[in-house]
Order: sequence, then C-alpha cells, then structure tokens
Amino acid sequence: MRGFARRHTVREALSWLDAQLRLVEPEDVSLRVASGRVLAAAIVSDVDVPGFDRATMDGYAVVADSTEGATPYSRVALRVIGDALPGSPFSRALARGEAVRIMTGAPMPAGSDAVLPAESTEANPDAPGSVAAVSTVSPGKNIGRRGEDVAAGTPVLEAGRLLRPQDLGLMSSIGLPQVSVIRKPRVRLVITGNEVLPAGTRPHGYCITDSNGPMLAALAERDGAIVDFPGLVPDEPVAILAALHADADIVIVSGGSSVGIEDLAPTLLATHGELAVHGIAMRPSSPTGMGRLGGRLVFLLPGNPVSALCAYDFFAGRAILALGGRPKAWPYRSLRAALARKISSPIGRVDYARVRLEGGRVEPLSVSGASVLSSTTRADGFVIVDEDSEGFPAGADVDVFLYA
Amino acid sequence: MRGFARRHTVREALSWLDAQLRLVEPEDVSLRVASGRVLAAAIVSDVDVPGFDRATMDGYAVVADSTEGATPYSRVALRVIGDALPGSPFSRALARGEAVRIMTGAPMPAGSDAVLPAESTEANPDAPGSVAAVSTVSPGKNIGRRGEDVAAGTPVLEAGRLLRPQDLGLMSSIGLPQVSVIRKPRVRLVITGNEVLPAGTRPHGYCITDSNGPMLAALAERDGAIVDFPGLVPDEPVAILAALHADADIVIVSGGSSVGIEDLAPTLLATHGELAVHGIAMRPSSPTGMGRLGGRLVFLLPGNPVSALCAYDFFAGRAILALGGRPKAWPYRSLRAALARKISSPIGRVDYARVRLEGGRVEPLSVSGASVLSSTTRADGFVIVDEDSEGFPAGADVDVFLYA
Repeated sequence: MRGFARRHTVREALSWLDAQLRLVEPEDVSLRVASGRVLAAAIVSDVDVPGFDRATMDGYAVVADSTEGATPYSRVALRVIGDALPGSPFSRALARGEAVRIMTGAPMPAGSDAVLPAESTEANPDAPGSVAAVSTVSPGKNIGRRGEDVAAGTPVLEAGRLLRPQDLGLMSSIGLPQVSVIRKPRVRLVITGNEVLPAGTRPHGYCITDSNGPMLAALAERDGAIVDFPGLVPDEPVAILAALHADADIVIVSGGSSVGIEDLAPTLLATHGELAVHGIAMRPSSPTGMGRLGGRLVFLLPGNPVSALCAYDFFAGRAILALGGRPKAWPYRSLRAALARKISSPIGRVDYARVRLEGGRVEPLSVSGASVLSSTTRADGFVIVDEDSEGFPAGADVDVFLYA
Repeated sequence: MRGFARRHTVREALSWLDAQLRLVEPEDVSLRVASGRVLAAAIVSDVDVPGFDRATMDGYAVVADSTEGATPYSRVALRVIGDALPGSPFSRALARGEAVRIMTGAPMPAGSDAVLPAESTEANPDAPGSVAAVSTVSPGKNIGRRGEDVAAGTPVLEAGRLLRPQDLGLMSSIGLPQVSVIRKPRVRLVITGNEVLPAGTRPHGYCITDSNGPMLAALAERDGAIVDFPGLVPDEPVAILAALHADADIVIVSGGSSVGIEDLAPTLLATHGELAVHGIAMRPSSPTGMGRLGGRLVFLLPGNPVSALCAYDFFAGRAILALGGRPKAWPYRSLRAALARKISSPIGRVDYARVRLEGGRVEPLSVSGASVLSSTTRADGFVIVDEDSEGFPAGADVDVFLYA
C-alpha cells in the first residue's frame, strides 16, 4: 500500500480545471421549455410590439380637443359612431365631436388622438347615440404607442442570460417560435464498488446500497446537465474503461479513486488519457482525481458519500456549470453569521465543515467521517476553511453556504 | 361601461385565498426524480447504515494491544493472515499479533478492534508474510461503527422537507426504492383574447402574439405545478366555460378578467361557481378575480402581461406553492438597498414597482403601463409598496425582490 506521492492544493486543482472549461455549442429549443436555460445569442426584435397604437384604458377614442371645457356641470356631448375592440378595429376615421367606444388593447381609430376613460363619461339619455364627457382629456393620453414595449431593431435580451419566465413571454411577443440556448452538458455517471448494491435494493450482509448515484444525478441535473446513469459498473478494468469512453462531455466516476489495489480508475485514466490531478489537500475528498480522455473531462470522486458531495461541488459541478454557460460560483445561497464554537484546520488544507444554524449562530457538526451522509442532511449548510487559514475562533463571523 | 363597484384590498384578497388553500394528496415517485419535491411523511429507517463495523482507512485490522510499544525505532512485527475488501470480508477471526490487510469500507474481521493505518506500517523484508507496525493504535481507532450514519428506528427526514440531492442519497442508502411526496398541483392555463395569436406566430395586423401563455406556464412550473396548456381559447362563453371545468386543481384564466363587454370569465364564474374577489386595490393587476368552481381554485388574471405576472405572483403562484406543500412566500431572493429616487403610491393601494440595481442603488423604472412586458425583462426585480404606505423617499432602504 502507498499514499499519494504529493497532494495538489485546491487552488492548483481549480487552476488546472478552469483552463479546461469550454462552453458547449448551442441548440434550438421551443420557448415552452426554455425557462432556466442560458441564451446563446442576443435577441434583436424585427417587429414593433405593439404593431399599432392602442388604448390602455376602456373608454372612448376621441379628438382630445372635442372635450375642451367638459366638467360634471358642463357636460360635452360626443356622437358615438362605433366600437373598437381588441383585434377588431373601427374601420373609418373619426372627426372632432365624435367618439368610438374602445376597449383596452384595441387599435386607436384613425383621426383620434386620446382615450377618454369610461369614468370621465356619463350616459346621455337626452341624446341616444351619444355620450357625455364630464372631464377633458389631453392629446396622447391613455394611448400605448406602436413599439412602446419593443421597437424593431432593438436588442431585447443579451447572450448568456439565464432565461426567466417573462423573457419567454417577451420572445413570444416578437414572434419567436424557438430560441438558441447553450446545450445541456451530457454527464455519464459511473458508480463502482463490489460492495455496492443498486439503488432500490435493501442493504444486506456486508453490502451497502448506492447513495452516490441518486445524489450525484440530482446534483448534476440541478446544475443543468443531462445525466446518463445506466446502472452500477463492476470493479473491472474492461467495464470501467468502456464507461470512461462514454458519449458524454463529462464522466463522473464514484468509488475506486484512491491509490489502493482496487482503485482502478486513476491508473486507467493515466494510461489511456491524462490524469492531471490526483490527491488534493482537502478534507473530506482528498482522494479526488481529475483528467481528460479524448474530449471528455473526467472526475474521479471518492466513494464516501460526503467526499463525493464535496468533490462534486468543488470540481465536477463547477465544470458542468461552466460548460453550460452558467456562473461557476457555488450554487448555494450564503449568509454571514457568528460561529458558536471554533473550527480548526491545518494550514495548507481546505476544510468543508458541515454546520447547523441554531438561534442565528453557526454550530459546527461533530461528525467523524466522510462516510456519514446523514451529516449533510442534518446540516443546514457548510463553511469552507481556505488553505491559508487555520480556521475560525468561536464568535467569528463566517460565510455559511446553505444547502436548501 | 362600468367600473368595479368596490375593490378588495390585497389583504382581504389574500385572506380569502389563504382560507381556501388545502394541501393536495401524496403520490409515490422514484428516488431518481424526487429532488426538489416535498416529502409527504417522515422517513424512519428500519436498517442500520452501515450494517456492520467497517474500516475508515486503508491499513491493517489488528488487536490494538498488539501494537503496544511500536515506534520507528522499535518496530513490532505482525503476521499478515489475509485480506478484507469492501463487500468481501475476511472470514476467520483474528488474534493478538495478527493483521488483516483491510481497505476503507471493508468489514472489520472478528476479533480485531482497530485499523492500523498503512502509513503507520513498513514492509518487513526480513519476515515474508508479516508487516512492521511503526506506531501504536488505540482500540476503536479508524472504525466506522454499525449504524453510525443511520441507526434503525431513527427518523431521518421530516415531513414537509424540500428534498435535496443528498436526501435522495440517504434514502437510497436505507433501501427505499421510492418515496411519498406531495403531488404536483395540476394547473390548466386558459389564454383568451380575439386579438391574440398563438405563441410561435409572427404578430401582424391588429393582432398581438400571446406572451402570457409561455410566461405563465414557466412560472407555474417554477412553483411546482404540472401545466396543461392546450392552446388559446376563443372569447366565447361555451369555450371558456368548458375550460373552467378542466380536470385540474387550479384554473388560471388570462384576459377578459375586467368588467367590459368582452370580459366573459367573471360572469361565467359568478354564475356557475363563486366569484369571491373581483377588482383589487393594486397597481398593476387591479382587474384580477378569484373564486372557485367545484373543487377548483380559479384565478382571473388581466391580459396585460405585467399585470398577469404581478397577479400570478401575488395570488395564483401562492396557491400553487401552498397546494404543493411549499412555503407561500415570494419565490424570489431579496436584498435591502437604498432608493435612488422616490416611489409614490396612494394609501389604500398596493404598488408593484419594477426597479433596476445600479451601483448598489435601487432605480425605479419609468414605465407607463401594465402592457410593457419589457419593463420586467429590463428590471432586476421589484419593490412592493404596501396599502398602508404612501411610498418611500429617495435614500430610503427598501426590500428588492430579485427576478433572477
């Protein structure tokens, strides 16, 4: 048995990784499924929205001058000559002293220059076919101008934008049936371990049931990947090597990532591709590896589930986010709060400390090992101790990244 | 034409709404798709994880006493009698002076009480079949105890929890093939308007292309709904009434929600069900209605897209979140920052002001109308002015809810 000859620092590992990260190519998708996707190219409208002047209130389209002097005590009669409804315009022109009953969204009739709101009118029982204005309206009032929402030729959304629901609405309003977005990175999950039973099996004997497969699949999907996880892979060189050659942008191997006799993946990757990083000065997750095989980025994550989670978030998740055009930062909200107890960590090593928030203070969980996944379900989040820090004293303000 | 006889306050409208909100029933789903879902019942494990004591380091399983006195200058030889690998235990018992080569995760052999780490040993060339201990180990060291992650009988996750990736891992590790989660509320989207062209069509003439359908579908899915949006519904009583009777928990109608001659939905709902709220003292979105039809909650949203977005987030989204077991609060992150310019709003009305963040300050957007959807794509978020407030002066700290 042997240890790692030398451990990379987290900074070195990230530096190698960041130099590998290339955006994947775009694809066209229907607007219906584009929310949360990353826009590949700026959107420029080639139409005006609306394509015509329209009423922004229910009332009467008029020549504003016609209402001059109108008050509740000096009502001005206007002859009602027709109706304008949304999608159904009044077809003739309107003159001074005339009014067209109009609904919000309906096109303004030719000749009109304002909408007199319904509440500024009264019925005119003395003169059928007319309405009484009880206040004035100024020219241009209560009209939405052609192009006021989007003017043709205007860039409306920037490349790289994470699309929001209202962005889909806006793109739909300018007539786009689909949109070019960054393709989702394809991730092949390779879960190994002769002692591991497939998810859905009750653990028995000296076997454990796979926790990393369901967890890593959900993490990768959260970060925008399409996950291919066809089942467990036996701890055999031929099977692992075949899986490393998957049709994917990223291969994530869980288990057998260290330097023991059953740790096959690092040697296979070094032999058939490039094992650029192996062994990282961090806890947990030190037996993590990274490299390339053809066009694929390969991540070798430890089988211990806390290590797998931590190494995923530090490295594999970062790659998925970047390939998919998303910010590389932790996909967790953070808050700043005071530590209830100190956290110690040696210089030169990054620590990932699971914590609870209790009464507004940050309580580090006392957990022994990287194999205790329940520590990450009992925790509210984690605190990172950088490699140039010895930790934090009780009472220090720290950044907590929240799992939920 | 007539206005609203009386507008409900937002507080009254929310009070009616909150009294209607009932959690929908649970359903079983595969763990593979359970991330982000809401757990319907607490999870209690009926197995120990791990189900056996195991090594937490690579090294040698020993009787700790055997290493007494071992130092680099006084090496203690141990006879290596076999191997223990994960899933492949050493089958006999181990005695004082003996060692079993063991890998992380492998079951502890009977008789052993510690793992001497590989780095505390040296090869023993003088005596083949033996290894030299160069330091001592204490009893219990480097062992993960049966049940240390999950002990049988322990509740591991609470009902109502929003499931995280690591929760799926934990549930998988105790052998669960599926999990009971709150069913996704089913939402029928009813988009009306004779002037509205279906999404994917270029706007032309006096028609506009539907923006609310794609936007509302994405909003409802964001909030955990399954959306049924089979296409536009003609502005005809028979068609709208049929759509209101959809097989759904919630029906969201967009367009024709006001009191004009073409506003059919409010009358249909009042006639065939209950129109509990119609007209709300808020801007935009004042022509919003809410009611019930059979077991369905019905929301009548204005056709103007900013009004539709705002009324969705205030009312329909709140209902979807609550029916699905999620917190009813705005699903937007907020931050507190100072206003660059004042925001005014009359007492008695809630205002939804779109804002940009510029150099850390909050800049209200100058936009005229509820029809300008691009105001919500240019905005970074919004500020709410409550009904008992006249707004905020320049320089005041306000809560900004962020769209992204």
